[in-house]
Amino acid sequence: MKPYTIDFDLLTGICKSGKVQPVQRRVSQMKMQFADPEAAQKAIDSGDPVLYEFSTLLNDEKKGTLAFGSTIIYPGKIGDEYYMTKGHFHTILDSAEVYYCLSGKGFMMMETPEGDVDLQEVHPGEALYVPGRWAHRSINHGTEPFVMLFVYPGDSGHDYGTIETKGYRKLVVERDGKPVMIDNPKWK
Amino acid sequence: MKPYTIDFDLLTGICKSGKVQPVQRRVSQMKMQFADPEAAQKAIDSGDPVLYEFSTLLNDEKKGTLAFGSTIIYPGKIGDEYYMTKGHFHTILDSAEVYYCLSGKGFMMMETPEGDVDLQEVHPGEALYVPGRWAHRSINHGTEPFVMLFVYPGDSGHDYGTIETKGYRKLVVERDGKPVMIDNPKWK
Ligand SMILES: [Mn+2]
Ligand SMILES: [Mn+2]
Repeated sequence: MKPYTIDFDLLTGICKSGKVQPVQRRVSQMKMQFADPEAAQKAIDSGDPVLYEFSTLLNDEKKGTLAFGSTIIYPGKIGDEYYMTKGHFHTILDSAEVYYCLSGKGFMMMETPEGDVDLQEVHPGEALYVPGRWAHRSINHGTEPFVMLFVYPGDSGHDYGTIETKGYRKLVVERDGKPVMIDNPKWK
Repeated sequence: MKPYTIDFDLLTGICKSGKVQPVQRRVSQMKMQFADPEAAQKAIDSGDPVLYEFSTLLNDEKKGTLAFGSTIIYPGKIGDEYYMTKGHFHTILDSAEVYYCLSGKGFMMMETPEGDVDLQEVHPGEALYVPGRWAHRSINHGTEPFVMLFVYPGDSGHDYGTIETKGYRKLVVERDGKPVMIDNPKWK
């Protein structure tokens, strides 16, 4: 395999050259993962907005390779719950991930299979290290797009099913204009 | 291991919080790797300037982990050869690396054990994928610090010895005010 370069705008994270195409996730693809599915249905009925998008260079997906790209979580709420990503474990659970925030601000909600929970706020110019074993979900509690670069081992894989089935132990919702972490009443 | 955040300035790459300390490399530590060791000796005698520095979070150095940080290559020349890093293979040769340029501009000089050579110019807002098997050296042919973030597999290790012994097949030098790639006369 040959080396290559690819552009990700320093502010927006967008690949303007079109060398990689973003994958978009809309409310309809995550309806049951929000605490308030009725609010989600209203959002779907009024245009089904894009919650987030990401552009990934997968490369070889073998040991020693790296996948990388950019992710943009848009600002907004479903009920009182902020726009967020599905979140996932890595299939090879011990696989870490590095994020670097370019603009906006947000949280990374993380939890282990054993029930440890960690919430980190990320701002522009901050890197976040997500060690292996920690499921991770990005949450935008700001008013601008929350933009990060990411790098993870190429062979790590994605396990979205565990989170889809069980949910996260904790949610981040707005109370009196501020983000607070609460127990997820639907967590199994 | 717990998740954590760390700051790397969006422009300078510097960790202002001091959570990680940079490692500096001066001309005296690379004298014999420059094409013109006499010019290197002159630079050493007049203050031994810092060629580059890097700040690395090593984490666990096991499979699935990631090491990451920032690197700054300063502008300047030794004779007609631009300031550059030592360069290395990864000990686990198949280990890739991702770079993202924050400011300045420069080259990544890359070569494989089989003799393939690739030179990529990198600008702010561009990511570079260095696949496994490719030795890599950063070169600053600009007038500002050349600043990049990097991420590599935590277990990849560093083989500096091969490059120190054999050198790179190619050099980048200034000719008529412009960078050109030439054969390394000292390559073994
Ligand atoms: Mn991930
Ligand atoms: Mn390396």
